[in-house]
Amino acid sequence: MSLIKNSVNTIHDCDGCILSDNIYRFEKLFKLCVLFLDSPNMSKKLLLLDVDCGVDDAQAIMLALAAPNVEILGITCVQGNTSVENVCKNVLRVLQVCNKLEIPVFKGASKPILGHEILGANFHGLDGLGDAPDPNAPSADMIQKEGAVSAMIRIINEHPGQVSLVATAPLTNLALAVRMDPSLPSKLKGLYIMGGNTESRGNTTVCGEFNFAADPEAAYIVLNDYQCPIYLACWEFTCYNKLSWEFCDQWLAQDSDKARFMTRIFKHSLDISKTERFEKEFIDGTGLISCDSYAVAAAIDDTFILETDQFPVSVELTGTHTRGMMVVDTVGVMNKTQKAFIMKKVNLEMFKQMMMAALK
Amino acid sequence: MSLIKNSVNTIHDCDGCILSDNIYRFEKLFKLCVLFLDSPNMSKKLLLLDVDCGVDDAQAIMLALAAPNVEILGITCVQGNTSVENVCKNVLRVLQVCNKLEIPVFKGASKPILGHEILGANFHGLDGLGDAPDPNAPSADMIQKEGAVSAMIRIINEHPGQVSLVATAPLTNLALAVRMDPSLPSKLKGLYIMGGNTESRGNTTVCGEFNFAADPEAAYIVLNDYQCPIYLACWEFTCYNKLSWEFCDQWLAQDSDKARFMTRIFKHSLDISKTERFEKEFIDGTGLISCDSYAVAAAIDDTFILETDQFPVSVELTGTHTRGMMVVDTVGVMNKTQKAFIMKKVNLEMFKQMMMAALK
Amino acid sequence: MSLIKNSVNTIHDCDGCILSDNIYRFEKLFKLCVLFLDSPNMSKKLLLLDVDCGVDDAQAIMLALAAPNVEILGITCVQGNTSVENVCKNVLRVLQVCNKLEIPVFKGASKPILGHEILGANFHGLDGLGDAPDPNAPSADMIQKEGAVSAMIRIINEHPGQVSLVATAPLTNLALAVRMDPSLPSKLKGLYIMGGNTESRGNTTVCGEFNFAADPEAAYIVLNDYQCPIYLACWEFTCYNKLSWEFCDQWLAQDSDKARFMTRIFKHSLDISKTERFEKEFIDGTGLISCDSYAVAAAIDDTFILETDQFPVSVELTGTHTRGMMVVDTVGVMNKTQKAFIMKKVNLEMFKQMMMAALK
Amino acid sequence: MSLIKNSVNTIHDCDGCILSDNIYRFEKLFKLCVLFLDSPNMSKKLLLLDVDCGVDDAQAIMLALAAPNVEILGITCVQGNTSVENVCKNVLRVLQVCNKLEIPVFKGASKPILGHEILGANFHGLDGLGDAPDPNAPSADMIQKEGAVSAMIRIINEHPGQVSLVATAPLTNLALAVRMDPSLPSKLKGLYIMGGNTESRGNTTVCGEFNFAADPEAAYIVLNDYQCPIYLACWEFTCYNKLSWEFCDQWLAQDSDKARFMTRIFKHSLDISKTERFEKEFIDGTGLISCDSYAVAAAIDDTFILETDQFPVSVELTGTHTRGMMVVDTVGVMNKTQKAFIMKKVNLEMFKQMMMAALK
Repeated sequence: MSLIKNSVNTIHDCDGCILSDNIYRFEKLFKLCVLFLDSPNMSKKLLLLDVDCGVDDAQAIMLALAAPNVEILGITCVQGNTSVENVCKNVLRVLQVCNKLEIPVFKGASKPILGHEILGANFHGLDGLGDAPDPNAPSADMIQKEGAVSAMIRIINEHPGQVSLVATAPLTNLALAVRMDPSLPSKLKGLYIMGGNTESRGNTTVCGEFNFAADPEAAYIVLNDYQCPIYLACWEFTCYNKLSWEFCDQWLAQDSDKARFMTRIFKHSLDISKTERFEKEFIDGTGLISCDSYAVAAAIDDTFILETDQFPVSVELTGTHTRGMMVVDTVGVMNKTQKAFIMKKVNLEMFKQMMMAALK
Repeated sequence: MSLIKNSVNTIHDCDGCILSDNIYRFEKLFKLCVLFLDSPNMSKKLLLLDVDCGVDDAQAIMLALAAPNVEILGITCVQGNTSVENVCKNVLRVLQVCNKLEIPVFKGASKPILGHEILGANFHGLDGLGDAPDPNAPSADMIQKEGAVSAMIRIINEHPGQVSLVATAPLTNLALAVRMDPSLPSKLKGLYIMGGNTESRGNTTVCGEFNFAADPEAAYIVLNDYQCPIYLACWEFTCYNKLSWEFCDQWLAQDSDKARFMTRIFKHSLDISKTERFEKEFIDGTGLISCDSYAVAAAIDDTFILETDQFPVSVELTGTHTRGMMVVDTVGVMNKTQKAFIMKKVNLEMFKQMMMAALK
Repeated sequence: MSLIKNSVNTIHDCDGCILSDNIYRFEKLFKLCVLFLDSPNMSKKLLLLDVDCGVDDAQAIMLALAAPNVEILGITCVQGNTSVENVCKNVLRVLQVCNKLEIPVFKGASKPILGHEILGANFHGLDGLGDAPDPNAPSADMIQKEGAVSAMIRIINEHPGQVSLVATAPLTNLALAVRMDPSLPSKLKGLYIMGGNTESRGNTTVCGEFNFAADPEAAYIVLNDYQCPIYLACWEFTCYNKLSWEFCDQWLAQDSDKARFMTRIFKHSLDISKTERFEKEFIDGTGLISCDSYAVAAAIDDTFILETDQFPVSVELTGTHTRGMMVVDTVGVMNKTQKAFIMKKVNLEMFKQMMMAALK
Repeated sequence: MSLIKNSVNTIHDCDGCILSDNIYRFEKLFKLCVLFLDSPNMSKKLLLLDVDCGVDDAQAIMLALAAPNVEILGITCVQGNTSVENVCKNVLRVLQVCNKLEIPVFKGASKPILGHEILGANFHGLDGLGDAPDPNAPSADMIQKEGAVSAMIRIINEHPGQVSLVATAPLTNLALAVRMDPSLPSKLKGLYIMGGNTESRGNTTVCGEFNFAADPEAAYIVLNDYQCPIYLACWEFTCYNKLSWEFCDQWLAQDSDKARFMTRIFKHSLDISKTERFEKEFIDGTGLISCDSYAVAAAIDDTFILETDQFPVSVELTGTHTRGMMVVDTVGVMNKTQKAFIMKKVNLEMFKQMMMAALK
């Protein structure tokens, strides 16, 4: 009963105006019901991934692909770790090694909102995947003709209230989408973001985490305009929840094409992770920080998150040292009602299993 | 010959990739030629108007509608003087009084890029057209289903190199369009903007002109990413080129439905124009400042502009008092090659004739 | 030997030019030696306190007054918790209850560098000392005629290399002093500051600690221009090292005039500390946060600090949400060689003893 | 009668407290009267000059020295066109050539408020006076021991209500002085500043004039805290009132040591004035811009200024392109009552005579 009521509301929201025509309303509801009954896995999680496919995004995508009861409706690409052209190609390579080239890949923004590209974004190599040669990479022809922002709007509108959007990249596509369709956030089931920081520990600028610092305006727009549940896997959280190098060795040592692929593309980042510069960044000791994977894991399984902080959040846009830093209103001086769920404690055993499965 | 060569390049740009298929290339070129021959007025100016239809936009639209040899391909709407819903309605009312309801009207952004609405934007009344009642206003059904940004991209791509885009509003739609299609500016014939200021004389904030101050990020994106000829009718320029109250009286006194319509919608702004607050704003004496009309006039007739300053320009995004102020690099310390054409002297006789014709 | 050599250097620095006159040099050195021999406690710590005497400063001053082997050369006052006039009066009241009215009190800046007073600075009551009536307060005549900044410069120059400056207030006086005498920092033994934050947990603005947020420019100038050892007791550190309410009860229950005085002036802050707003601020549970006392304790006893982080630090001046936030360059992207000593772990047993002694 | 009343008020202000002791009041008044009667030129203008002695300051100082009925109480130096050490030396050289070495010279701030030195400040040569060798320059010993800020406070307090302060440099000394003695501005007769701009035409940064851009915080403090009549000779004003090159030739061709000195030190700036970069800066044609001299001329003769704009003014501190730009509140949106007198039209004939006299 509550489901049906909800669906009606969703139709209503979706059209943005009061439907006076009851027949039309009934017809739409009926279609939704058919959709439900038609689906063999009624409980399947519908995921839409927005990535700037570096090695960490690759890990996160592979984790999603390996998860049971998950349907990935599409992967939208955006500039970040590397150019958007490389990002598209990288996603196709990941889908190829996982035999999932049927998942549609969409090309999105080639620049952040203001147009300034961030320097030194090549932690994962110039091509984003460790500059490991790949002679059999899928052709760029496989990228959809439809743009990422349009696709995002279309897909979410086709599944109102059902899609979990996972963003592991600068939030440019999401910001553009909400300006093109202001009602979009209300149609999401939830938004899972890897990005931002909570203790002003920068990994890119003095105080800024990469995904937010790479497009502060986009992050600002998303945190302020996505009026849906927002779950944040922030930089410090991912550092405090890093996995051991022993786990990493085991993980990569699996006898599979996926593991061999990961070993190849991960080499570059692993090597520089062990330099002094990055050891400083990786707060609280070193280890494997598959940062994007936490956001995907949270979207896949509701029981993954064990504890969250709930605070209003925003992004600093104008600071000399703090531009792009996430701002957490712990005391309540910003005048904001929406609170984000900031991940604090997660089920690391579950995480390790998901990670292992990703390369199996 | 140079035309054909140009067209080929345009096709190339338009698709964003090298066309290996010569047949396809030929086909497109052929279509373009047919388009040319088909057109009875080869020299017709193709205009696309982006407005936040207050009274000044209404004047500018009417000026364009009255001009010979001009085809208005569409009018895109954006929030600014009033809500985007009101803007759409206002444009339809203007088209109705001019018997041009066949021109398609598109609804665009309902918020500026960052989402902050500017306060006190009701110079032209709450509804943007002087709050003059209009029982016979066209229905909102007449607004196109296609969104303004999509339409803008589509229309410009359909007429590569031919469209003059005239923006007399906050530049939100234009900014979104270039992020959705980075090659868009290269396909424009020219961009004509009413907005910005050159001498830090604010009409909205201390140093900021309304259209820029209402969406500084959009203005910044447009001035930095539209790599096509940009012509600016800035606030001080429009003040220095105001028309006399005598002209205004004559203009409104014409015996036509259009003049009576204008008299009705203009009453509110005219009244408050004469208050002390606005006399201060209207630099250099008072009079009729039909600010948006200068940008349209320049787009319609190449001989309208008599003198320009040519400098790199940008927009201040972070100042306490100067956020939204246009920045003119007179000395050459910004590292920027593109120079905007800042209108300095125009043919005011021609302008008066165009204005008179608009209400005939 | 090294002492004498050091003294010579100090003379040299102090005059800012090479002393060619050996006799003059010898004379000065001789005077220094006499000073040393004359002093019964050669190891006495020379302290100069800069305060905005709210209740927390009062606690810190009393802790210093009770410490053996400490000589307080003067107390300079600055606007902060309350007006500089109130601050002066409050310091005199504290000195009175401790029978130390012989310590000179100097009036300093009545405004922060830019002149903006911060709102809601009355955590400690309007008068800074809990608005507890005091009919026998010392007269304002007891304030020195010499201004705080002049006195600071004079006193430090009279004891080159020997003075530990402890600042538990907005850093306005210190900032002015270094602009008046650029060589001042090089003559300090050390600078101990209560202020700033390390994890962007604000107690005044979203991300800013009171003493820094109340005069961001001053904090910036001090952190960038005081080229002497700087020890920071930041807000989060003081929260993580709060004392229990049980200790607080014991502390205040001592049978002494000082304890009764503290009970009286502390009532107001204690009461509002227990409101929801402040419980949020006081990270990690509630308890007694005598924040200024940590800085004084560190200045008094070198063994008090057990562990520090050492990073370059600065202050954000331009952020919308982060203005006044201390910036810690953990990764090393700012181009700065000086590193501050950020207190991390201190001897809390020693602290409790010092605190108890303060009210004995 | 009104004079006496005023003097009493001045005493009152000067001490910052109500004088209950009538005898004391009478005594002070009597001293003032003696001071008046003692003076042979009761109408003498008392000037205090604050300079960063480049060539333009040299011209302004010489103009002041040549004026009848003017007494220069002192010249305070500050970093700007060159280091404060060079500035002091340059002032002494100017005084020497004018036989006025009896005027005391004080050394002030060696850094702007925040401590950032501005780049490319060597328009007047590295040493500020065109790098023209001067083997007979006066010794640095002639600089007063008292610092500039202390001297400024002392001198103004010695002549309450009588001193016209003329600042032709970054306003660091003035800003420090008002923080050291908040009542200082109320004791000034007037403040004359060369600095700032009114039309966002930069000569140093995109939108900033040198003296303000070199220390934006100081300019901000002075414009906001000097509650006395402020007269501004802004950059654009000095450009619009430049003198012809013909006048310049005549001026320098006078047969005097002063003219020969000026010819020597001015050569460097004159040469680079004629480069393209600087022709752009010098709005509205080229010519002699002795910018600092306008401020001195206005201080010397009340009839020099023919027309002013009167607006509240402030300084932008946080803009990317506009930091240091003067902000003129033409519309009245800042909430500020004090209005500065912005010079618009001056008596150029009088100016030429003063200029000629300066080198006679």
